[in-house]
Amino acid sequence: MTDKDAVLAANAAFYSAFSAGTIEEMARLWADNDDISCIHPGWPALVGRPAVIGSWRDILLSPHRPEIVCQEPYAIVTGNTGRVLCVEVIGPLALAATNHFRRVGAAWRLVHHQSSPIAQAVSAETPPNRQIH
Amino acid sequence: MTDKDAVLAANAAFYSAFSAGTIEEMARLWADNDDISCIHPGWPALVGRPAVIGSWRDILLSPHRPEIVCQEPYAIVTGNTGRVLCVEVIGPLALAATNHFRRVGAAWRLVHHQSSPIAQAVSAETPPNRQIH
Repeated sequence: MTDKDAVLAANAAFYSAFSAGTIEEMARLWADNDDISCIHPGWPALVGRPAVIGSWRDILLSPHRPEIVCQEPYAIVTGNTGRVLCVEVIGPLALAATNHFRRVGAAWRLVHHQSSPIAQAVSAETPPNRQIH
Repeated sequence: MTDKDAVLAANAAFYSAFSAGTIEEMARLWADNDDISCIHPGWPALVGRPAVIGSWRDILLSPHRPEIVCQEPYAIVTGNTGRVLCVEVIGPLALAATNHFRRVGAAWRLVHHQSSPIAQAVSAETPPNRQIH
């Protein structure tokens, strides 16, 4: 498996943990250190494991947890650092998300997540194209 | 100068280049590689130097370029990777931004920028507090 494939697999595991609502798995996917951070859509930045994992616990346990479909994941890996750009589709809304990973031993662990609303709502048939070059 | 101070200085240089509208300086602050990416508020992701630097050229040369004040910059550095979380204040609006840097020789160069609207507009007197722990 290439590094890019491994980072994409870690990214898929993140969305699977979200869909399944398994906080233990979500907590395990993030790096253990307190240098992790997260910006949920519309939120100010969260820094540190208690704040970040706590926010995911609240979201995953919420009865209003939305369904998120990750589309167009695109991995960029440089050494022990990787990130996946993707589109998060939540009902009629599309968000531009980036998941940043660090290689820890044989695993890629999340260190930062940021999700930003894209101005236009899109249909599932016509996701926004990422502009490359 | 510590690594955190150096990353904060690179972050300040980014906002200075924006304020001054100097595209040459903006282009210089980003890594030379095509693995750079950027998500402007409301935009889909841009990947690669032509798309990313081209977007900054359009923004910096626009007569409607806004004034951005960077508040509460907070640096996280791990090895040759660093990021700065900050609040971008644009008039009455606040955005949660992250600027990701890579150490290239003696410099810290931008590899990813993402700026997300924060749900509540804020006044300059009461910027949103970042939640730490």
